Amino acid sequence: VIRFFAAPGDISGNLIKLSHDDEKHIRSLRLRPNENFIVCDGNGTDYICVLSQDGDHKTARIKEQKNSPGEPSVLCKAYIAFSKGDRLDYAVQKSVELGVNEVILFKADRCVAIPNDITKKIARLGRISLETAKQCGRGIIPVVSYCGGFTTALSDAVSSSGLSVLLYEDEKEIRFSSVLTASLPVLHEPMIISTITGPEGGFEPFEIKQAQELNIPVVTLGPRILRSETAPVAALAAIMYETGNL
Amino acid sequence: VIRFFAAPGDISGNLIKLSHDDEKHIRSLRLRPNENFIVCDGNGTDYICVLSQDGDHKTARIKEQKNSPGEPSVLCKAYIAFSKGDRLDYAVQKSVELGVNEVILFKADRCVAIPNDITKKIARLGRISLETAKQCGRGIIPVVSYCGGFTTALSDAVSSSGLSVLLYEDEKEIRFSSVLTASLPVLHEPMIISTITGPEGGFEPFEIKQAQELNIPVVTLGPRILRSETAPVAALAAIMYETGNL
Repeated sequence: VIRFFAAPGDISGNLIKLSHDDEKHIRSLRLRPNENFIVCDGNGTDYICVLSQDGDHKTARIKEQKNSPGEPSVLCKAYIAFSKGDRLDYAVQKSVELGVNEVILFKADRCVAIPNDITKKIARLGRISLETAKQCGRGIIPVVSYCGGFTTALSDAVSSSGLSVLLYEDEKEIRFSSVLTASLPVLHEPMIISTITGPEGGFEPFEIKQAQELNIPVVTLGPRILRSETAPVAALAAIMYETGNL
Repeated sequence: VIRFFAAPGDISGNLIKLSHDDEKHIRSLRLRPNENFIVCDGNGTDYICVLSQDGDHKTARIKEQKNSPGEPSVLCKAYIAFSKGDRLDYAVQKSVELGVNEVILFKADRCVAIPNDITKKIARLGRISLETAKQCGRGIIPVVSYCGGFTTALSDAVSSSGLSVLLYEDEKEIRFSSVLTASLPVLHEPMIISTITGPEGGFEPFEIKQAQELNIPVVTLGPRILRSETAPVAALAAIMYETGNL
């Protein structure tokens, strides 16, 4: 079933105003008059709708509402360092598919590819999040934002999550799975877990020290070196698997 | 530490012949005379080497050998349907990073993008596997092959693995995690697990029936619809996590 997102302000009574783009999309689909589609409020509620005519415009008439089935029981925040080429596009798309709640970009010491126009980059990644959220059936559009430097990323993660972990390729002992399974039973609801992953060149030792001083566990995802766009996705898949959301 | 692969035939005594490309690569790195690098035999053994001169050629002189640390304890075979654009490139790269043993492509009923020259496509994906295996520190180069149609993929998977699962977006009840955790304790060593994933448009109901007739569990990875290149990677991450390899 095809899905759209609407802003909460577009919903009034049993009618939902469709954006120009969504209306165009719906016309192109040639839905039959009684064919259902879903409009999600981006806040965890799905409205099962049929098309309705409102003057010249198509609107959505609500038949039924329910919780979006696509939202996991755990809120995952992915702090991801700027990375080259289309690596961030990929990381955002896969993270949204796997149920991330929020993606926050930051500058790390070894970042070699900080965009000239960060606002534009964030906007582009936000569009990828929206398109992916529609396709994969999310109940929210995960926000993509930029928080500044590594220090800010660390303090934001710690203050906003029940568990923050930093993934580090040179960590050889402490496994992500050990930290995760030890922490889950003591996390308060809603469970909020942040992962912090570095750029292509990895983190600097002084950055690792900074994280440790904030008591952020520094962990490994095993003996294979994951690329900068793969590590956040693998960690997210592990969290979703461990919490019964995969 | 930089890694290369050599064919077993290139190793004689304590010297390893370097390929033309690897020699060129090593020259460009300007390694110091006593700097270590690793030559892996592609069969799970790493040789710690230093450069040595053999006439006009550089060769690798073995200082020490050990098991490659990058090989997981479980052998995963990913049966992946042909998919459009660079989706397969991505699926192969991420699967190799996460420890896949073998990638096998097949034609499913809804495949819309079967390459004209399958041999060429497989060769290209093989090169991606090799490059990724070097970068991420694998002890083997996972083979990428083509097995034919869906029926062949099913029978190959069943006959070669202790557990085969088919991932299906329209399955709503049976979770991949349930099947995996129930099966692991009864798998013989070496544990061989095959995942079978479909093209962009998903599997046809008759294909699902075929799998069920062979007693292949048809499972879901949760309520979000994963793209054709994401499903095999998420399933692999889950297997690696569950078996202590992530």
